Amino acid sequence: MMKSHGYAAHDKKSPLVPFSFERRDPGPNDVVIEIAYCGICHSDIHQVRDEWGGSIYPMVPGHEIVGRVAKAGSGVKKFKEGDLVGVGVMVDTCRVCEACKASMEPYCTKGMVGTYNARDYQGEIMYGGYANNIVVDERYAFTISPKLNLAAVAPLLCAGITTYSPLRHWNAGPGKKVGIVGLGGLGHMALKFAHSFGAHVVQFTTSESKASDAKKLGADEVVISKDPDAMAKQAGTFDFVLDCVAAPHNMNSYLDLLALNGTLCSVGLPEAPLSVAPFAILRNRRSLAGSMVGGMTETQQMLDYCADHNIVSDIELMPVAKLAEAYERVIKGDVKYRFVIDMATLPKG
Amino acid sequence: MMKSHGYAAHDKKSPLVPFSFERRDPGPNDVVIEIAYCGICHSDIHQVRDEWGGSIYPMVPGHEIVGRVAKAGSGVKKFKEGDLVGVGVMVDTCRVCEACKASMEPYCTKGMVGTYNARDYQGEIMYGGYANNIVVDERYAFTISPKLNLAAVAPLLCAGITTYSPLRHWNAGPGKKVGIVGLGGLGHMALKFAHSFGAHVVQFTTSESKASDAKKLGADEVVISKDPDAMAKQAGTFDFVLDCVAAPHNMNSYLDLLALNGTLCSVGLPEAPLSVAPFAILRNRRSLAGSMVGGMTETQQMLDYCADHNIVSDIELMPVAKLAEAYERVIKGDVKYRFVIDMATLPKG
Repeated sequence: MMKSHGYAAHDKKSPLVPFSFERRDPGPNDVVIEIAYCGICHSDIHQVRDEWGGSIYPMVPGHEIVGRVAKAGSGVKKFKEGDLVGVGVMVDTCRVCEACKASMEPYCTKGMVGTYNARDYQGEIMYGGYANNIVVDERYAFTISPKLNLAAVAPLLCAGITTYSPLRHWNAGPGKKVGIVGLGGLGHMALKFAHSFGAHVVQFTTSESKASDAKKLGADEVVISKDPDAMAKQAGTFDFVLDCVAAPHNMNSYLDLLALNGTLCSVGLPEAPLSVAPFAILRNRRSLAGSMVGGMTETQQMLDYCADHNIVSDIELMPVAKLAEAYERVIKGDVKYRFVIDMATLPKG
Repeated sequence: MMKSHGYAAHDKKSPLVPFSFERRDPGPNDVVIEIAYCGICHSDIHQVRDEWGGSIYPMVPGHEIVGRVAKAGSGVKKFKEGDLVGVGVMVDTCRVCEACKASMEPYCTKGMVGTYNARDYQGEIMYGGYANNIVVDERYAFTISPKLNLAAVAPLLCAGITTYSPLRHWNAGPGKKVGIVGLGGLGHMALKFAHSFGAHVVQFTTSESKASDAKKLGADEVVISKDPDAMAKQAGTFDFVLDCVAAPHNMNSYLDLLALNGTLCSVGLPEAPLSVAPFAILRNRRSLAGSMVGGMTETQQMLDYCADHNIVSDIELMPVAKLAEAYERVIKGDVKYRFVIDMATLPKG
């Protein structure tokens, strides 16, 4: 077995603490990645605290992983030692279902093997990226361009592709009016992408203080969602709204924004059920949709697009010792816009 | 003013009683229709009992209207005296917005003028089809084929087009697996249409007693929705599910039926908000959508399609005196499958 060390949660209430553990010995198709940076996703906190239920402990969170190949198995074709690589939210899928064959792996009918808080198909607990290294089949690793700031690439692996994929699927682009709800880790990536794709982008935020930032990040308009008059002026005019808010909130006021055949896609995954007024979807033949991260092919396309268009996440680089503080600030929305752990600060295992 | 008489509700608790009232004098573009039959829609009951709020009394319900032209104004082009005609859920829209220009009148940005429980743009109360006659601009009347049983055509004006329109929009047809939830007034029309369009149709019902009827009406499979094993076997396999149930029910168990990119469309309009589990839409990138009746062009297409394919509603023809009993039976789902009032039984005004 391969020795690893990182930070783990041992139950839903205690803070994360240093943790030594083992990963599988790398096989011929595996790469061993020396992790340089790992982003902090709001879903890390949901899962550490068992807010979605079924959490598996000890839990080493982290699925926004970038680093360098330390070792490539004999059968590895895409990577060689020293290459920059990334790992996102999954490390295996069945590879044979229709979804996998279409590179829609998140929708694998057998169910993806998550990067952490998951068991692989043999039943072994998977540990994530708050760690010094990871072993992964090359099929589930991405090529990272050296053109970009590596630490700022990490959040692309979840926040990036979670917003890129639905914006592409629902054709955000020239001639479309697109709303982004929430300006946090997901929201600021959604805003950058929607702007880059050429849509007319309206940022919705509860914080007046974020308005000028939103404009800098590419918003054509900013609407303070607590202002009923401002909301009413936008009613019925949007082709697509991407809701990036993780806290429970009123979906109907965002459904009301949609024009004929418009879609509101929720990617924030609030822990409470969404309450939908039947008339809010009846009017304008609206849809409320969900979306997962993109598949392997689309994620690589997104990373290549980011390299071509110089798009990365806005981050606060932090030492691993400040995890507890970072979690509290994520919950308060007090981060611009994603924490990334500098794995050089990890104590020796 | 033109004299009319019919049945009206005077408040949300009392039974409907005979009612004499006036309609506008017919203008040059109006037809006066002598009503032969009017269907009873579940939404009549919701509105009579003010279950959606804002009901306008006195209320003459009824928006599944068929009859003959008694008089055509000097400017009327589509109809002449004696023609069979129908009127559905709306009698006016703004006619100039993008939706109206595209004959998507139910989505008129000014808001449609409903056939009843509504005021026209001048503020006059509109009275519906539980009456001897109606005055309507020819733009909002349909041509009815003499090939079909006229009484059984009435429900096509709401139950028919409410199901036809989403089935067409979401491409129910050959190669598609389509679910119909609920076998009532809407559901039995949805089943007939989906079968006629060539989809593989699965009827979901709580009543085992309806299984054989569903097969006769065109279902390829029937699933008793109270059977968790039977539901689980269907999970993740549907392209489209049309939910025709008016009573509150668990949407998530029907969302779970959808395959990748599948849509669950609700047309039953339960009075309570729909509760949606975020993961139920996230998985398979599912959508929960709403839909109204089709526009004027699509409704005429539907009526022509029905004449060509010999499709009508299964009805129980009833005298107007039995309205109270009929309402109770609709709520219990005890009708196969739509009550239609024989207006010849209306007492003289």
